[in-house]
Amino acid sequence: MKGFMDKDFLLDTDMAKSLFHEYAENMPICDYHCHLSPKEIYENKAPKSISQLWLSGDHYKWRAMRSCGVEERYCTGDASDREKFRHFANTLQYCIGNPLYHWAHIELQRYFGIDTPLNSKTADDIFDRANDAIKNGDFRPQSLIKKSNVKYICTTDDPVDDLKYHKLLQEVDGFDCRVLPTFRPDKALNPTLDGFADYIRELGAVAQVEIKGYKDVIKALLIRAEYFNSVGCHVSDQSFDCPPCVMADDDEIEDIFNRAMNGEAVSDIECKKYATPVMLALGKKYYELDWAMEVHMGAMRNNNTLMFNEIGADTGFDSVGDCEIAKPLSRFLDSLNSEGKLPKTILFNLNDKDNTVLATMLGNFQSSQAQSKIQFGPAWWFLDTMDGMTNQMKSLANLGVLGKFIGMETDSRSFTSYGRHEYFRRIMCSLIGRWVEDGWYAYDEDILKEIVEGICYNNAIKYFNFE
Amino acid sequence: MKGFMDKDFLLDTDMAKSLFHEYAENMPICDYHCHLSPKEIYENKAPKSISQLWLSGDHYKWRAMRSCGVEERYCTGDASDREKFRHFANTLQYCIGNPLYHWAHIELQRYFGIDTPLNSKTADDIFDRANDAIKNGDFRPQSLIKKSNVKYICTTDDPVDDLKYHKLLQEVDGFDCRVLPTFRPDKALNPTLDGFADYIRELGAVAQVEIKGYKDVIKALLIRAEYFNSVGCHVSDQSFDCPPCVMADDDEIEDIFNRAMNGEAVSDIECKKYATPVMLALGKKYYELDWAMEVHMGAMRNNNTLMFNEIGADTGFDSVGDCEIAKPLSRFLDSLNSEGKLPKTILFNLNDKDNTVLATMLGNFQSSQAQSKIQFGPAWWFLDTMDGMTNQMKSLANLGVLGKFIGMETDSRSFTSYGRHEYFRRIMCSLIGRWVEDGWYAYDEDILKEIVEGICYNNAIKYFNFE
Amino acid sequence: MKGFMDKDFLLDTDMAKSLFHEYAENMPICDYHCHLSPKEIYENKAPKSISQLWLSGDHYKWRAMRSCGVEERYCTGDASDREKFRHFANTLQYCIGNPLYHWAHIELQRYFGIDTPLNSKTADDIFDRANDAIKNGDFRPQSLIKKSNVKYICTTDDPVDDLKYHKLLQEVDGFDCRVLPTFRPDKALNPTLDGFADYIRELGAVAQVEIKGYKDVIKALLIRAEYFNSVGCHVSDQSFDCPPCVMADDDEIEDIFNRAMNGEAVSDIECKKYATPVMLALGKKYYELDWAMEVHMGAMRNNNTLMFNEIGADTGFDSVGDCEIAKPLSRFLDSLNSEGKLPKTILFNLNDKDNTVLATMLGNFQSSQAQSKIQFGPAWWFLDTMDGMTNQMKSLANLGVLGKFIGMETDSRSFTSYGRHEYFRRIMCSLIGRWVEDGWYAYDEDILKEIVEGICYNNAIKYFNFE
Repeated sequence: MKGFMDKDFLLDTDMAKSLFHEYAENMPICDYHCHLSPKEIYENKAPKSISQLWLSGDHYKWRAMRSCGVEERYCTGDASDREKFRHFANTLQYCIGNPLYHWAHIELQRYFGIDTPLNSKTADDIFDRANDAIKNGDFRPQSLIKKSNVKYICTTDDPVDDLKYHKLLQEVDGFDCRVLPTFRPDKALNPTLDGFADYIRELGAVAQVEIKGYKDVIKALLIRAEYFNSVGCHVSDQSFDCPPCVMADDDEIEDIFNRAMNGEAVSDIECKKYATPVMLALGKKYYELDWAMEVHMGAMRNNNTLMFNEIGADTGFDSVGDCEIAKPLSRFLDSLNSEGKLPKTILFNLNDKDNTVLATMLGNFQSSQAQSKIQFGPAWWFLDTMDGMTNQMKSLANLGVLGKFIGMETDSRSFTSYGRHEYFRRIMCSLIGRWVEDGWYAYDEDILKEIVEGICYNNAIKYFNFE
Repeated sequence: MKGFMDKDFLLDTDMAKSLFHEYAENMPICDYHCHLSPKEIYENKAPKSISQLWLSGDHYKWRAMRSCGVEERYCTGDASDREKFRHFANTLQYCIGNPLYHWAHIELQRYFGIDTPLNSKTADDIFDRANDAIKNGDFRPQSLIKKSNVKYICTTDDPVDDLKYHKLLQEVDGFDCRVLPTFRPDKALNPTLDGFADYIRELGAVAQVEIKGYKDVIKALLIRAEYFNSVGCHVSDQSFDCPPCVMADDDEIEDIFNRAMNGEAVSDIECKKYATPVMLALGKKYYELDWAMEVHMGAMRNNNTLMFNEIGADTGFDSVGDCEIAKPLSRFLDSLNSEGKLPKTILFNLNDKDNTVLATMLGNFQSSQAQSKIQFGPAWWFLDTMDGMTNQMKSLANLGVLGKFIGMETDSRSFTSYGRHEYFRRIMCSLIGRWVEDGWYAYDEDILKEIVEGICYNNAIKYFNFE
Repeated sequence: MKGFMDKDFLLDTDMAKSLFHEYAENMPICDYHCHLSPKEIYENKAPKSISQLWLSGDHYKWRAMRSCGVEERYCTGDASDREKFRHFANTLQYCIGNPLYHWAHIELQRYFGIDTPLNSKTADDIFDRANDAIKNGDFRPQSLIKKSNVKYICTTDDPVDDLKYHKLLQEVDGFDCRVLPTFRPDKALNPTLDGFADYIRELGAVAQVEIKGYKDVIKALLIRAEYFNSVGCHVSDQSFDCPPCVMADDDEIEDIFNRAMNGEAVSDIECKKYATPVMLALGKKYYELDWAMEVHMGAMRNNNTLMFNEIGADTGFDSVGDCEIAKPLSRFLDSLNSEGKLPKTILFNLNDKDNTVLATMLGNFQSSQAQSKIQFGPAWWFLDTMDGMTNQMKSLANLGVLGKFIGMETDSRSFTSYGRHEYFRRIMCSLIGRWVEDGWYAYDEDILKEIVEGICYNNAIKYFNFE
């Protein structure tokens, strides 16, 4: 039996061990998509306990606990830190095969120096040891980021955001990780959501544009994109079931927009008719700014109305949708490409049934503008698992060029989630190591080093023009 | 080369062997979904030959034989038992990698004491030896059930059924397996089927409800659910391409229902409009009775009209559909949940492309009402294969909590199909054993025992309130 | 570490090695679907360089190069042979895990005698050695075909083709590979394509039928099918997103056809209404001629309008679609079957999410007309990878009868692509060898020999009535 999650965790060949320990392990991190708070990074406060660190905002953990029948008060409610931790520890022992199990133990090992497996029997002891470590050590955000060797962080920000903390962070001494904003215009693209009209008015105010029609929305967004660019933004992000690509004439779009601004109902197809010209205008702007455009597809959100009304969004009630995406995605990308204005694009799917569609879609729009200009985004959220990551990399290897992959990002809200990069790198080295070991790929130290270090860090740095 | 299907069949690590032989192998069986006949169990007649036992009702075997070009008379026709067996034996030797191959050999080994591989060369000899075993041994249903250590059987029953044999079985001395009915209202939910009106009239007569409109159908079904409950029913079952969730107003539903009762055509969407309020009313009733609601999704039935007209349904002409299920399934579950009346629910998919959708859907509706209240049903029918079971368990492990899984059922019509539980358990122990052996999960004898025995039997017993 | 792509490449058990080297390796090839040019085979000209052989028409290679940011002039443009080869070599070193990497090295080893791994460092040397081999050896099409032990080639031909080169090839001395036409009526089935009316007029002229309505199109196609049959055709081929099965009345179909002939727009659904009766008539004809009907599903073509306008179709801008196929495919096959006129049929999917749908669809329509009359076509185009082939064979094994599989075809445009049969056979022997080695399938030399040689060659020969 191999040791439990030891230094060769997931590394099942000599080649995998060598690739990981010689190359991957030592590379810095470029976390080009996450949901960390720039305010929290700037304020740099130490957490009070491991429960606060782990359980105060992590919907993955809450979902697992609810799946074990744990009452809501131990998840998001007012139970004590110790009680919550006990329930989480008990849950974790049933999470065999779940990435949560590996993430938790990687974090215990790397940040807390605790090698003991977490379960009901060890819960109290580990709770105490972890809280001692927090009290006696340095668990402030900037320290965790430095300790994790993170060089770039792209947060996720609304176009109306003033980016105050991004600017302040540029002035902090001794903190050399660059924290950059990401332009995420989702709220401006979805007139079916509550609060759309208010949001659009806020956007107009911030951009100093009087919003009389949907073209003014575009105008305001482009102004804000310029502002984001001036604060160092290199990336935009948008999330759809699939990208909007339903053409309509101006009058119809204005009518849809006006009804939405008056608080009237807008159908799903009307939403797409409005979003199409807005998104196409944004795509062109991204091209002009040489940004990368991230497109996240396939989330189905807020499925549990009862809990949404009680505790709101992003609390663990989202799941995976199954819309057809091939045609609208192709038309959307082709529309931009036909005008010579398709930006660098990263396609993310949440349903792994779409792996083949995405991994072949890339090849339709590659060009000499960048190496793998259209990227297949790493396995994300529900797919951020051993199987999910392996399948994404195999799809990309089979159907595209794995050696030009920009690799992992955390998509996380937690400062100890950088272990997910380690997890990804182990899986990547295991996959590549096996291919070399089995004589499927020629052994060449220089080339393997370039590929592994590329996927870990260098390809992303080059792709986003970070250096 | 490992021995052919020996005692360590499928157990590829020491840990897998230990988990299976120490724990899994010895657990009783809770077969919470099958199509066994309570009448046959009660009447307890011995079969006449292995052909009668194996080939008189098994569409899996007929399909394989037809795929080898075997004429229909050797499948469902009037050929002799020996001829049919010869054709099946010849077919089986080409079924490399098919679960039928493993099921047949497990049954030969466990029930007949025959270790010889079955093929054209050995067909006659095995035919004779198996028939001798039947003649000289005890192959009656109750004996096979006892020999297989089955403690609970949930059959599949129509709401109009009087459950006579379930009642009689409760009185049989020396047969301590509980044979419980399952409430399966499919015929009342589908006005596009031939015979719908006649069926509804029969339902009304049995429930002593005069059927004047669709609300009377609901009334009659609820009365029958109460009756089923009084005979020990704990489970309901329904099969859809996807659950109906299309809201319509009362007048439209009554109109659809009346047209169906008059033998007029009803479209697919109208069928869903009628089925939606009926199914929602049933769901609430299941909640009140503390039943589990099984939902089987994705079968496409009776594809071959010619053969359907010749030999009817369930004869091997069904296959897998590919509808979008995420949105309607989410809305259906949310509708019940919003009223605080979502019963324990087991979601089964027939198309493995839906694994990720289902395994994440679970998490939207878990609660402290039960441990993993919403279950991902085990790989079923066409997915009841090594790959299908492994993929279902990996999906559940990645996206839910495998340790709370209620495990396998046979879905079978045959009394020698209990070998499928053994097959499942070997695969489950192989999967978990590998994870422990590779250091991916911490070795802890108590916890592993609890997880393995839980998935084999204990989780189901607890989930269905059987003890 | 195993040697790089040595004689036991992909053969990971002793049984796999034995099955491959004893049986698979020595079997001839029946390439029952490809895009080779009968004219080129007949004219039998030697290539001028490896770049001409490899890079003048291979969209797989161009896509990979574009994914590495290579400029178009080095792909399809006017750069020199050496420059193009250098860029391809550089690209290839990043294609870890891609079948292109294995195909290229198999071709270098088998046809050029070059064992050196191809990358940037070795590019110039290999370019020179390969061109020397071409200059001093015999790389003419007929010689490559003979060297590859190919006995049957089915090309892909338009119904208007005069099949002149097929006839000429029948007369060539010393070339005993049979080169047979395949009837591919796609242009007659799609009134949404540019040039439809002109094509239909040409078809009428060739068949000597005056085209006044869609029934005359059918008449002309049936005449051409008879002609193809007289030149040795045994196979038809058609490509759809999914097979057309939308019934309409005669008047509507004539109206759609007339509008198409007048160059007016026809919608997607109208296209299917027109194609349905045409395709059903063709299916019946195929049955009467005892041809096999190939149905390729799931390609989404010409996604990049800009490049399509520059360099046309089949240049590397196609990808995988995600339509629902189960219902229309079932209805299409059932329509033919209900009239007793369903031909032997081979179903190919380009989206692997459809594996389960197809592998179960087969079983609905098998009959004693042929062994596995309905075949699951081998993994094709984007799925022609180690994972794609393994998954297709596992699906077929799980859900059908692998032992009756007709095996591989190249679908290729290149005379050195026969290495793909070797690649397939190694993967097939690895899969089957593993099952035997692990005790999952009983070892029996005769049966294994029959199965392996059957999948390599014998099953296809029998299926197509080639001997």
